[in-house]
Amino acid sequence: MQITPKILKGFRDFLPDGEIRRKQLVHILEDQFRLFGFVPIDTPVLEYAEVLLGKGGGETDKQVYRFEDHGNRDVAMRFDLTVPFARYMAMHRNELYLPFKRFHVNKVFRGENTQRGRYREFMQCDFDIVGTETLSSDLDIILMIVSAFSALGVPGVSVHISHRGVFNQFLQVHGAAHQSEEILRVVDKLRKVGEEQTLQTLTELTDRDTAKKTLAFINADGTYQEILDTIEELSGGPGPESTRLREIGEALPELVPDNTVVLDPSITRGLDYYTGVVFETFLTGAESIGSVCSGGRYDDLVSLYSRESMPGVGASIGLDRLLAALDELEVATGDTSAAEVLITMQDPDLTAHYHRIATVFRAAGVRAEVYPDPQKLGKQFAFAERKGIPLAAICGPEERRKGTVNLRVLATRENKEGLDLDHAIEAVRNLA
Amino acid sequence: MQITPKILKGFRDFLPDGEIRRKQLVHILEDQFRLFGFVPIDTPVLEYAEVLLGKGGGETDKQVYRFEDHGNRDVAMRFDLTVPFARYMAMHRNELYLPFKRFHVNKVFRGENTQRGRYREFMQCDFDIVGTETLSSDLDIILMIVSAFSALGVPGVSVHISHRGVFNQFLQVHGAAHQSEEILRVVDKLRKVGEEQTLQTLTELTDRDTAKKTLAFINADGTYQEILDTIEELSGGPGPESTRLREIGEALPELVPDNTVVLDPSITRGLDYYTGVVFETFLTGAESIGSVCSGGRYDDLVSLYSRESMPGVGASIGLDRLLAALDELEVATGDTSAAEVLITMQDPDLTAHYHRIATVFRAAGVRAEVYPDPQKLGKQFAFAERKGIPLAAICGPEERRKGTVNLRVLATRENKEGLDLDHAIEAVRNLA
Repeated sequence: MQITPKILKGFRDFLPDGEIRRKQLVHILEDQFRLFGFVPIDTPVLEYAEVLLGKGGGETDKQVYRFEDHGNRDVAMRFDLTVPFARYMAMHRNELYLPFKRFHVNKVFRGENTQRGRYREFMQCDFDIVGTETLSSDLDIILMIVSAFSALGVPGVSVHISHRGVFNQFLQVHGAAHQSEEILRVVDKLRKVGEEQTLQTLTELTDRDTAKKTLAFINADGTYQEILDTIEELSGGPGPESTRLREIGEALPELVPDNTVVLDPSITRGLDYYTGVVFETFLTGAESIGSVCSGGRYDDLVSLYSRESMPGVGASIGLDRLLAALDELEVATGDTSAAEVLITMQDPDLTAHYHRIATVFRAAGVRAEVYPDPQKLGKQFAFAERKGIPLAAICGPEERRKGTVNLRVLATRENKEGLDLDHAIEAVRNLA
Repeated sequence: MQITPKILKGFRDFLPDGEIRRKQLVHILEDQFRLFGFVPIDTPVLEYAEVLLGKGGGETDKQVYRFEDHGNRDVAMRFDLTVPFARYMAMHRNELYLPFKRFHVNKVFRGENTQRGRYREFMQCDFDIVGTETLSSDLDIILMIVSAFSALGVPGVSVHISHRGVFNQFLQVHGAAHQSEEILRVVDKLRKVGEEQTLQTLTELTDRDTAKKTLAFINADGTYQEILDTIEELSGGPGPESTRLREIGEALPELVPDNTVVLDPSITRGLDYYTGVVFETFLTGAESIGSVCSGGRYDDLVSLYSRESMPGVGASIGLDRLLAALDELEVATGDTSAAEVLITMQDPDLTAHYHRIATVFRAAGVRAEVYPDPQKLGKQFAFAERKGIPLAAICGPEERRKGTVNLRVLATRENKEGLDLDHAIEAVRNLA
């Protein structure tokens, strides 16, 4: 009665090399979040469906894993980390302090169509500052993004920012505010369908003049200040929204290298719930992969659960897309080797001695693995190469008597013989 | 139409302090696993129910979150990390190498009765070596356990080991092998029900002589060698199983401090599927919390999915229980403070300058957070104390002109004034 081992479409197993890489990536990001004073939280994978979906449920429903549990409760698996965060803030408001800076890296689940190369289980990495509307917090998120990607060792990072409120102001001035949803939908597809087609669709929606000005807004170019002047003028002059963009632009030269942050009015984040600054992030040399970190400022996080208002600003890193971008850029994220040295087994009577050698290596911080079987050395070397272990230590009865080991560099087949353990540790550090 | 924010019984939110602690614990353990050459894997939370439960399902079923997905597939959430590991090894056998040493730290889900203080979502931390039956791999797991807990900084760790095969041999010799399940069940409750009751129940199951000898086996005491001699004699003399225990006992003095590993024939691991060495782990001073890491050797991992046989040895750390034990022992796991210094806001016009100071701190590896609002300093200090940030940096227009900051130690209200950034960094390192 054997069962065929298989997994669900859209779900993945992670083999060791991929999982080591993913863990290192998350670890680097988490260290950066902590450097900025963001703190980690976690929430359950499973929640009341009503809490995650609101009363009614609606369109999201079809993508949500939802079922009745043993106690006949209507439950669902989380499909993002934002809704649980809102519920969390409403529930723990009195145990926390504002402004609250949290990060949350964990799995979410969506029963999406997998044909578009989407996964049904994937990691999200969100960070937000809630309880403040200040310039400082907008800057904090932008600096956080720049810092996080710089720490990954990418050749360059470019944060494209804009302000949803300035665009709304522009639509208002042109009497098109009531059509903002449709216009955002069209503008979002600009790169896909081209300028001509976009102009035509916008003209049908509004009029030729508004359509042209919309494109002028979206395509404004020049320096940060020049672009800002253009969109400010198109939206009827300065307002608090464009002033925020101006303040950000003035603060940046002191904080990040030139051109790291670009004012790009084409960034609107479609139908998302943002109301203030919005941003997308591109890695130099991997722009075609798209934004690896997107977000913005929103008016209120917790309105679904609480009467208290809680504005915030945040962003989300797509780990799968980021890994694809790092692959394309051939950026390694630290060490991916399993162990640094394999203690081979020459003689089973020396089993305890081999573990003793490994213990000494580990005490010096060297990752050391003991091969458990007295197989032929060639087979043990092949195992090490298969697993990505660069060095092998060899010790028979004679070496044991002398208190030495021989080291073999597997890639070059070079041997270093008769090293005492201190010298062996030094050699591993130099060679691994 | 507001929704009451609430979570399901048996599920938990993690507040920042708890989550920081949990992450640090996992990180220390993962570093130790890597030191021994264990590599991480991951598997999906959701799998085909048939794959997780076998054809039929059976008793486990009631505790399993199982439902029909959008494609009418019968799916279930994983309830442990062992079954997915077996499926993984059967499926990826050709992409991997044997012996395979893996660790897996992640959430599992069980619809258990929460009244016994159990959670329905909890983290498991498993590590196994599969594809080898050697003494070396038994030693490897024992050393891994000792090393993992030592790294956590506990005052002492004690690994109690025994051998399921020796106990089976004992039952065989006394003609009670066919009752092994019932006897294991009774023996498992020895500490709860007491010796007299156990003796009586065993007598009813077998006979007075066998019952007495069973207790003599379970209660054997003395040194490792003396206990081994006793149980070896009671089970009819030496055999491969008792020889394995003897070899382990001979190897240990070279590898771990005296009395770290204790031969304890009362460890049987109840009805678990172990066939060789078994172990439980107790932390000195927190013995009453029970075993924080249990496991053993098994004959075959993958038989449900493959005809290939794959023996192994492994153990599992219960993170919730471990955290409870560390609390009881008052063992801190590293730093739990959010940031080390709060850059307070005196003047919004200096917003960029505050972020600049934070950037300089962070470049030196100091976790620095910028307070975004120009609140009264007292309120900003209170925020820092609430969040566990020990130091505040204060900078107004005058300090900015001089290129200095003032540092305040919040616990003592001590101030250090007029520090340039280099000295401020040094001071934070000394004070935080």
